[in-house]
Amino acid sequence: MGLDPTKLKKYLGLKREFASKEYINLNPIQRGGILTEEARKALVEFGDGYSVCDWCPPKTPRLDMVTRPPIHDFMVDLASFLNMDVVRVVTRCREAKFIIFHMLGKPGDYVVIDSLAHYTTYLAAEATGLKIKEVPHNGYPEYKINLNTYAEKIEEVKKETGKLPVAALLTHVDSFYGNLNDASKVAKICHEYGVPFILNAAYTAGVMPINGKSLMIDGLVGSGHKSWAASAPTGILALTEELSKKILVRSKIVGDWSGRHFPIKELPLLGCTVMGAPIISLMASFPHVVERVKKWEEEIKKARYLVEQLEKIEGTKQLGVKPKQHTLIHVESLGFQKIAETHKRRGFFLYDELKKRKIVGIQPGLTRHFEFNVYGLTWDEIKYVAESFLDIAKKYGLSVG
Amino acid sequence: MGLDPTKLKKYLGLKREFASKEYINLNPIQRGGILTEEARKALVEFGDGYSVCDWCPPKTPRLDMVTRPPIHDFMVDLASFLNMDVVRVVTRCREAKFIIFHMLGKPGDYVVIDSLAHYTTYLAAEATGLKIKEVPHNGYPEYKINLNTYAEKIEEVKKETGKLPVAALLTHVDSFYGNLNDASKVAKICHEYGVPFILNAAYTAGVMPINGKSLMIDGLVGSGHKSWAASAPTGILALTEELSKKILVRSKIVGDWSGRHFPIKELPLLGCTVMGAPIISLMASFPHVVERVKKWEEEIKKARYLVEQLEKIEGTKQLGVKPKQHTLIHVESLGFQKIAETHKRRGFFLYDELKKRKIVGIQPGLTRHFEFNVYGLTWDEIKYVAESFLDIAKKYGLSVG
Repeated sequence: MGLDPTKLKKYLGLKREFASKEYINLNPIQRGGILTEEARKALVEFGDGYSVCDWCPPKTPRLDMVTRPPIHDFMVDLASFLNMDVVRVVTRCREAKFIIFHMLGKPGDYVVIDSLAHYTTYLAAEATGLKIKEVPHNGYPEYKINLNTYAEKIEEVKKETGKLPVAALLTHVDSFYGNLNDASKVAKICHEYGVPFILNAAYTAGVMPINGKSLMIDGLVGSGHKSWAASAPTGILALTEELSKKILVRSKIVGDWSGRHFPIKELPLLGCTVMGAPIISLMASFPHVVERVKKWEEEIKKARYLVEQLEKIEGTKQLGVKPKQHTLIHVESLGFQKIAETHKRRGFFLYDELKKRKIVGIQPGLTRHFEFNVYGLTWDEIKYVAESFLDIAKKYGLSVG
Repeated sequence: MGLDPTKLKKYLGLKREFASKEYINLNPIQRGGILTEEARKALVEFGDGYSVCDWCPPKTPRLDMVTRPPIHDFMVDLASFLNMDVVRVVTRCREAKFIIFHMLGKPGDYVVIDSLAHYTTYLAAEATGLKIKEVPHNGYPEYKINLNTYAEKIEEVKKETGKLPVAALLTHVDSFYGNLNDASKVAKICHEYGVPFILNAAYTAGVMPINGKSLMIDGLVGSGHKSWAASAPTGILALTEELSKKILVRSKIVGDWSGRHFPIKELPLLGCTVMGAPIISLMASFPHVVERVKKWEEEIKKARYLVEQLEKIEGTKQLGVKPKQHTLIHVESLGFQKIAETHKRRGFFLYDELKKRKIVGIQPGLTRHFEFNVYGLTWDEIKYVAESFLDIAKKYGLSVG
């Protein structure tokens, strides 16, 4: 075998350069996933392999039925919190989408999605053999999804295939511009047609209040590591009672020789999903998450303040819908781009300058367009980030004012 | 919403009663998943959500392409260690099986499996719409899989459907009796027919030496939390170059309105898989795992010693193939059952007696048949476990001799 054991030292003592305490990390996908202290402790306590399986109930051996630790209660409480009927924790938001598509559709069927959907929405459809029909956005500079077009797209699918799409999915807040979409608007359209409405709440559930019933969601998918202060990989699959009957189907297979069968196991979950540390981190952070969503308005104020400050910089504006309704911000800066054109480090100068100021998480090399997320920053940190950008602009002779 | 925030305290300060230092935990699924100290530290360092994504390469944004931390190197080293060509870390061994079945088969196709396969093998087949054909075992007391029957079952599928099965899967060591199967025997049969041979090494890779090329494995699936001293959920999907071309297919979907496409993403992985703490725990334990598999013979000696001691107890014998070739042990004890019949705690007496002695992990209530795993116990611990069982037997008047 080609393995050189002396070279394995590199896997020991791995450190994360951007640990949250040293740096202000603005990485768009990381702000909502910073652990609480409770979660960090829980991670160590339940670090070992199948740590949550000490008390797997012999008659209902399934993760969601475990009562020590209180995983069963957690599923119920999580459903209450989202105002959905049934919740399962799965390995990733993308897996939740795959599970829904896989259980509802057959190869060749359609799903209608927004054109700013996360790439994993496309992959989840593709992996199940579904075709997609995209709902357009209005392009630069707003990139606003034309929500009414869901009706048109459903009609198109009907005309083309003689059947309705198996589901319509809306990305509640997209990962490019951080635009918040009115879920209930799409829900109404879907319900008129009898098409299950799926909300990808990866950037919303866990950071802002979500009420599944008011939004008329049939299926909500979320991400523990993105927005619930949990370790990866954790996804949330929250369903209405009605949809859950089609999704959380039990196994029916019977061994042709042995007669073995597993009627308690939920087929699309392949039995159990997150049987260790990450689900415990999700649970340990849950009381904090329940409280933090109440402070969402303050988070928006901080986002708007930062946009206001950044837009003082020559040639710099926020893209996406204004004013911000989410903490994920996409900035276009012709000013910073102008500097990059002649700087010896090209676009990396901005990264370098920010890093000197202990601010990281914006993709190195980008200046004309870049994204970041300010969720959970204190007002002092927000002001520090704003000042840092303005400082850098001034240092390179951009007008600020 | 029905959530009572005052009741959320139960999620704080969760403790694991059976933390490894206080108890000898014999849980059959847990011995190989106890973290190394290195893994425990890594877990905290990389606890936050998408902690491994700080340096996601912009041109190849994929988990297996990340070089800081050295995830890419790890995939290569892991492949070397298993003597396979290509490795991906997925969320669970069961997901690895699902991925293989899903990519190789169409609904209605067959897969041949052993009749002691893990229940998730059945579910992975069912979830992809595959039918199964089971290879029988020889029943009580050995439960030995008739490996030659793989040929017969492949023939049956051919006769029934006009096609070969899409794959044949062998459970290297089963979860009931801990029987070790000769993988190369089945591999030869499969290769004669041109059927891909999949080895479920959930109980072997990571604890005992595995050489994929000598065993002629086309696809190996393993479990980080079961056998690699890693946190759940982590699975290992190891493939030959040839099979990887059929499994690790890249996305081809194109947005019908936007033209968006994702050709770098691996479709069945839905892009990325374990993007946080558990993969780092797997990496941090890897140098230890590379060393520990060399001590497998000593582990077997300990298992055999314990069996020898337990079989001194009236009416007690090890089921499965003898002598043990694995540390997972299934015991039949008509002696302990006899006591349970009249004890006021029924079968729970055994659990109570063991727990008093700080030994846990055998399913409470069981006496006639029970399973446990001694992997990684020291000789002192093995002797203590043996003495404890003998003590309990004597206390209740069973003959021991």
